[in-house]
Amino acid sequence: MYDLIILGGGPAGYNAAERAGHAGLKTLVIEERALGGVCLNEGCIPTKTLLYSAKIFDYAKHSADYGVSFEGAKIDHGFVVARKNKVVKQLVSGVGAKLRRAKVDVVNASAVIKERSSEGFVVTADGKDYVGKQLLIATGSSAALPPIDGLKESLESGFALTNREILDLEKIPESIVVVGGGVIGLEMASYFNSVGSKVYVVEMMDHIAGAVDREISTMLQKEYAARGVEFILGAKVQSIKDGSVSYEKDGATQTIKTDYALVSIGRRPRTAGIGCENIGLKLERGAIVTNEYGKTNVPGVWAAGDVNGKSMLAHTAYREGEVCINNILGKKDRINYASIPAVIYTNPEVASVGETSESIKEKGLDASVETVTLKYSGRYIAENEHGNGVVKIITDNKHHNILGVHMIGSYASEIIYGAAMMVETEMRVADVQKLVFPHPTVCEVIREAMFTE
Amino acid sequence: MYDLIILGGGPAGYNAAERAGHAGLKTLVIEERALGGVCLNEGCIPTKTLLYSAKIFDYAKHSADYGVSFEGAKIDHGFVVARKNKVVKQLVSGVGAKLRRAKVDVVNASAVIKERSSEGFVVTADGKDYVGKQLLIATGSSAALPPIDGLKESLESGFALTNREILDLEKIPESIVVVGGGVIGLEMASYFNSVGSKVYVVEMMDHIAGAVDREISTMLQKEYAARGVEFILGAKVQSIKDGSVSYEKDGATQTIKTDYALVSIGRRPRTAGIGCENIGLKLERGAIVTNEYGKTNVPGVWAAGDVNGKSMLAHTAYREGEVCINNILGKKDRINYASIPAVIYTNPEVASVGETSESIKEKGLDASVETVTLKYSGRYIAENEHGNGVVKIITDNKHHNILGVHMIGSYASEIIYGAAMMVETEMRVADVQKLVFPHPTVCEVIREAMFTE
Repeated sequence: MYDLIILGGGPAGYNAAERAGHAGLKTLVIEERALGGVCLNEGCIPTKTLLYSAKIFDYAKHSADYGVSFEGAKIDHGFVVARKNKVVKQLVSGVGAKLRRAKVDVVNASAVIKERSSEGFVVTADGKDYVGKQLLIATGSSAALPPIDGLKESLESGFALTNREILDLEKIPESIVVVGGGVIGLEMASYFNSVGSKVYVVEMMDHIAGAVDREISTMLQKEYAARGVEFILGAKVQSIKDGSVSYEKDGATQTIKTDYALVSIGRRPRTAGIGCENIGLKLERGAIVTNEYGKTNVPGVWAAGDVNGKSMLAHTAYREGEVCINNILGKKDRINYASIPAVIYTNPEVASVGETSESIKEKGLDASVETVTLKYSGRYIAENEHGNGVVKIITDNKHHNILGVHMIGSYASEIIYGAAMMVETEMRVADVQKLVFPHPTVCEVIREAMFTE
Repeated sequence: MYDLIILGGGPAGYNAAERAGHAGLKTLVIEERALGGVCLNEGCIPTKTLLYSAKIFDYAKHSADYGVSFEGAKIDHGFVVARKNKVVKQLVSGVGAKLRRAKVDVVNASAVIKERSSEGFVVTADGKDYVGKQLLIATGSSAALPPIDGLKESLESGFALTNREILDLEKIPESIVVVGGGVIGLEMASYFNSVGSKVYVVEMMDHIAGAVDREISTMLQKEYAARGVEFILGAKVQSIKDGSVSYEKDGATQTIKTDYALVSIGRRPRTAGIGCENIGLKLERGAIVTNEYGKTNVPGVWAAGDVNGKSMLAHTAYREGEVCINNILGKKDRINYASIPAVIYTNPEVASVGETSESIKEKGLDASVETVTLKYSGRYIAENEHGNGVVKIITDNKHHNILGVHMIGSYASEIIYGAAMMVETEMRVADVQKLVFPHPTVCEVIREAMFTE
């Protein structure tokens, strides 16, 4: 008998379990694959390991600009993949150790919610029934695989890859078609471009990077186009068959011959086969419906992470898991989706939080937009011979608080959390002006932007 | 006749001038050397340019750890210095352009305050008198050069160097003795260690890095000691003569044979020869006395930057200059010295803000100290094969607000501004717990530290 059973050991689940365990709840986590979930095993972490090697390789390619020279730079993709596996293994075992320290039980099996009994919720895993007074569903998401002609067979043959298989390619392909120009697609396009593959990005919309501020995503696209990535926008993929990807654009069908196709057109909440129907859980478009407290329609059942279909970011999942635990513990807590940052780990990096130029128009907000070059930063100039990064600040015209911050350039990933604090705490321009940013840094351009006339 | 005359075109002066100009004040800046001051011409910016090249070279040395290989890595110090000059030139001309846009007049000459007349303050520069209703003194600082035996002659011969001359060395020396293990000394020690010189750091105190949290400065010292830098602490330099530096330690005198000696034992406010006495300005230990509004003892005369001897950081100077202008404009403003971040751009970087383990003891504060490894960050592990960085959080035991944050590790320089925001806005642990930090980043360890049991 558990106080809490958590389905899924990814960011939402393992973090919630740790907090719950330390708070004294008898907690069980059931995870069918490895602890850490998609993020740790086949998402955030492995991609960042690959991308860091690519960055080192990029540095090598451009080092002469900074007075460093050498001969015959090579990247050993096999080594990079092996190192990625080592890093993942280390982190997965770290998650296990954290859960043990928090006295959380872990079962490695797939779980199905069987029923609600008088004692609590019954969950079956590996042929055994477990009972929890409360349930937290954190089963995550899986790659969306729409009924494209030939996709099923191509996945079987190994020509088509998802975020999972792409990470274990043994050799650098000569060419790869990335279907879907969202975060996952762009990060992998960035890696394969750096290591020498011919990369195509085929995207249905007329822009890449989804909801990212359009000015910024356009800059990112130009940057990679200049490095040889071919972007095919407004194109609908019609077939993915061994050796080729066909798409329709402007009424005509085109075919690209390629070694591989990466299918990265989105993620779907993993709600099938886990027994949602056995306790009457409400779903909408496949996602478990939750409110800002993490509550589902069934009292005692909570959901966090990708499975609620809301933000689909690991750090949102962490926080959602914590919100659920706090509310379970009787400490009222809610998540504010308006101040969640997002990062694309390309080189240059893209990072953003809050309203965009597009969203303020859609919502009819009375707001100002200021785009400032990162060349205001002496450090940026010292470290970027050919950089043209920017920071873009969106402010409310009435209250002068910061509504959104968007960046493309070095360190953006590590800078954006401070901007998210500004949005979350409704800081005004005058408040930021009074903060002291260290000099010389790239982040200080955020402050400088507050003085733009 | 000017509304405001500013003595000095460094960070305090040029930034204040820009704000003043945009606010409609008729403003004159008098600068005897290049616009941008020590920071831009012979401090922050040139050192960061050098250090970035060193970092690229360091990457090259360790790239095999990440799967990238090549042969015969070399750094071309002459190229690095030439590039540094190019970067500085670009930024100096940028400051000039900013001042022109703000309609600020600039005179390139040394300035002396002559007197207070019925019209205002009279300042003489290049044989001409200028009158300003108000004065802002921002003459900065220069390297402290105590009466060490042989130092004067060694500076003349070029054996002893200050922060100015060290930046233009034509060749990488075989060996260099850094006298003074503060920020400037450590950054240059880092550069010359990276490019292959034998580096000695001779420091009078029993630790390096001045007021930096001791645990962090000790880690930095160990890191560089492992790379071959020789630290000689608790040592008093007795003579600096062509080819050798002698010091006394534990009662014995030792001599190091070396190519160069860098004298970086501190900075002194530049108040001599500028006519402070002609208007009765109050000085203390050579610094102009100011309050938190930037006011001196003479109504209408303000001072900002190193010349007030308070914080001696470029970003403090920026803010102090702004505070002066705001108060001149009748917008009451004050600077909070408790939340000013500081960075040492070694590799790994060190960054800190607020109280340290030592300062809370000295002040008798009831505070807790938590040191957390950066290995909690998946990104840190992905990007640092042999890193052992930490973040250290100091919190008030009663109100649970953040009093200090200290880091050693990658991105620390760009992360610390957010921690400074936490200190400045008196955020509590529970407030930081509710913020969402992007994953995977190094900065998210700050948040994780808030949950340490």
